[in-house]
Amino acid sequence: MSFNMNEVITKKRDGGKLTEEEIKYFVNGYTDGSIPDYQAAALLMAIFFQHMDEEETLALTRAMKDSGDTVDLSSISGIKVDKHSTGGIGDKITLIAGPLAAACGVPIAKMSGRGLGFTGGTIDKLESIPGFQTTLAPAEFFKQVEEVGISLIGQSGHIAPADKKLYALRDVTATVADISLITSSIMSKKLAAGSDAIVLDVKCGKGAFMENEEEAAKLAETMCKVGNLAGKKTVAVLTDMNQPLGHAVGNAIEVIEAIETLKGRGPKDVTELSIYLAGWMVYLGRIASTHEEGQKMVRDALELGKALSIFRRLITSQGGNPRVVDNYNLLPQAAHKVDMFFNKEMLSGISSDGVNTAAPEDAVYYVSEIDSQRVGICSQRTGAGRAVKEDPIDPSAGVIVHKKIGDEVRLGDKLATFCGNNEDKVYIAINEAANIFTFSSTKTEPPALIKRTIE
Amino acid sequence: MSFNMNEVITKKRDGGKLTEEEIKYFVNGYTDGSIPDYQAAALLMAIFFQHMDEEETLALTRAMKDSGDTVDLSSISGIKVDKHSTGGIGDKITLIAGPLAAACGVPIAKMSGRGLGFTGGTIDKLESIPGFQTTLAPAEFFKQVEEVGISLIGQSGHIAPADKKLYALRDVTATVADISLITSSIMSKKLAAGSDAIVLDVKCGKGAFMENEEEAAKLAETMCKVGNLAGKKTVAVLTDMNQPLGHAVGNAIEVIEAIETLKGRGPKDVTELSIYLAGWMVYLGRIASTHEEGQKMVRDALELGKALSIFRRLITSQGGNPRVVDNYNLLPQAAHKVDMFFNKEMLSGISSDGVNTAAPEDAVYYVSEIDSQRVGICSQRTGAGRAVKEDPIDPSAGVIVHKKIGDEVRLGDKLATFCGNNEDKVYIAINEAANIFTFSSTKTEPPALIKRTIE
Repeated sequence: MSFNMNEVITKKRDGGKLTEEEIKYFVNGYTDGSIPDYQAAALLMAIFFQHMDEEETLALTRAMKDSGDTVDLSSISGIKVDKHSTGGIGDKITLIAGPLAAACGVPIAKMSGRGLGFTGGTIDKLESIPGFQTTLAPAEFFKQVEEVGISLIGQSGHIAPADKKLYALRDVTATVADISLITSSIMSKKLAAGSDAIVLDVKCGKGAFMENEEEAAKLAETMCKVGNLAGKKTVAVLTDMNQPLGHAVGNAIEVIEAIETLKGRGPKDVTELSIYLAGWMVYLGRIASTHEEGQKMVRDALELGKALSIFRRLITSQGGNPRVVDNYNLLPQAAHKVDMFFNKEMLSGISSDGVNTAAPEDAVYYVSEIDSQRVGICSQRTGAGRAVKEDPIDPSAGVIVHKKIGDEVRLGDKLATFCGNNEDKVYIAINEAANIFTFSSTKTEPPALIKRTIE
Repeated sequence: MSFNMNEVITKKRDGGKLTEEEIKYFVNGYTDGSIPDYQAAALLMAIFFQHMDEEETLALTRAMKDSGDTVDLSSISGIKVDKHSTGGIGDKITLIAGPLAAACGVPIAKMSGRGLGFTGGTIDKLESIPGFQTTLAPAEFFKQVEEVGISLIGQSGHIAPADKKLYALRDVTATVADISLITSSIMSKKLAAGSDAIVLDVKCGKGAFMENEEEAAKLAETMCKVGNLAGKKTVAVLTDMNQPLGHAVGNAIEVIEAIETLKGRGPKDVTELSIYLAGWMVYLGRIASTHEEGQKMVRDALELGKALSIFRRLITSQGGNPRVVDNYNLLPQAAHKVDMFFNKEMLSGISSDGVNTAAPEDAVYYVSEIDSQRVGICSQRTGAGRAVKEDPIDPSAGVIVHKKIGDEVRLGDKLATFCGNNEDKVYIAINEAANIFTFSSTKTEPPALIKRTIE
């Protein structure tokens, strides 16, 4: 069949439904360069306004998946379960939920991305462990999953090249925030990665793609539908991103927090979400017959230290130094650590009684909001993240958030610590940190972490 | 001020109103290449959906006008009046209304375009006159307007280069049919061309940009508003394009029809519209105090042969052979002229009495519809038009439509003649001509030619 890109754009512009063939023509043509950027940009904007239904989104996802290599995991025994987060601040859950699910017998053969912008990537975090290799030959990768139960490697350049090209275009044409485009971007890579089932962590709130819960729910539903229609059992969990996950936002400091969690001493939110998501992974891997049972198995694996032991073997197997688990000093250390304290200037926004400037030195306040996106940006500024793909990362850098929503604070309390090897960058980050916290003279309840689950 | 194109796209995408500065930033950046095609395409599609108001359209028009040269006609005495058609089939009105208005004393210093697609250009038509030069140095151009009262030349490459670039992009990104974009494209060139007042002929119907009369009226209103806000008195006349204007669609054959009209023997519709539009030109040129009075003056100029004499001088002054006015054989002659007759197969669509196949040989039918766009395409196929800018034109080629809506036809009557020097092309055109005419067994009233005037 012969297609004309102008006609495809016109059809979508006028609210028509694109056929699978038209979508393939677009994806293949754009990937091989026969369809130019400007026509792709016009179509993306038309999709932004006219949307795609589930069938179109599935066709788009499949065409993008088929634009590159797909991984065949069938030689690994068991039901392989993948896990994906739409991108959070301080999101180290894969480092915990992966070993937890593996400890329960779910084979985890996972490819992860690097961070870009203010959200970090699992691969960058793992690479802060001295010696850790995130590139393995397929045979080694498969062997490790069989022997250790888990392997975490970087995504190859040949997975869904259409997504890489389209994402770069969306990023500069104001066409990122569309549900079908986000879905196809995420799910094309998940389908190509070869697991049998997928657990999605869909973030909503200030630091997420989707600020609004209803929009996030729609995205979650679309991704589940597309995953299930493509034959992968998919579950999505909507979780809060109105404050960072845990305390650490960076690379080595997040690895430490993940290890602490695997030791049973992690922050409450990180522990809760890791168990919840790993519970779904165990259920989807058919090790447990309900999510509840899956969570129970995961809790046991955590308490018995089984997941920590798997994490140690994971590090060893991928060439890293497993002693970091017991001695955090073996991880990259920041030469500069600068604290930010709670001071009177930060109170200017509080007006409930109008007499703040006269507030006594020992008055009690509460953290009412945290701008998690701003925390992510500050972490990036310290050197923990990249502005462009080629930027190097300082594995020691990042931000430690000491106070979370609902926490009591008094003047002089430590709010956050900014770490990194480049002192200038650390101070640049602090200079942008002024409005991270909002305070109230009355206690605010922290937002619910897990909002809903969509199957 | 510093702008970011992604933010400009986002603002329009979300229904915001762009500032004059943002619009200038876009137009200048796109023209000089610092803003890439794909970002321009995304903005154009966002404009298609979110529209631009009159202020934005004016700012866009001005920025596009300012992207290149502007013509200063102030050295020519009198109020210079321009005339523009949004593009019709068989539209030779400029060749008649121009000399008519000039004969009444309105200085006409007009730059016209070449044809692209199925609508012909005034410049191509004029160039079918042996020797006629459509490129004049500014001094010659001005001198001719002073001496002859009229000069018609081709548009220079330096007029509104932003429009040239944007139009090419709109053409391949399904963003042509937007009122503010059409307005800015047409009006930027009209403003740059330097006349003091403008008469617009806005076509509506099957062979026009705007099929729908309400849409065409909206376009006409927007163009008038922008023209008037820019300080040029602008009048728009909405006219019918549901059948070709006159009988001839091509180049030399249209010149002949124009001369016949100037001799007082032209088709009724061509004569009527030429007088109507020239009447407005005379009124806007302040030679007449009402449109009625303007029309009367134009009618007199026509009857007294003054406009024909001006047309002759126009040809002479631009290097052409003025004897073509008296001897049409001096114009390029088509080597092949093939007639299309009314035959029984063309009756298949008629079903009012259900007994058509048994209709007597001498039954009377009426033309109920003419697909004027199809006529335009067939004319292009004969060699009279271009598919791409570089295509040469066969000045002798085109289509002569013998029957118009409401005309009586009997089996065997001649419906149209296809002309050209390339026999293959003539037959290709005929092969695409089957459905040009629709017939009825009852008489259809021809559509009203002049629908309304917007000041």
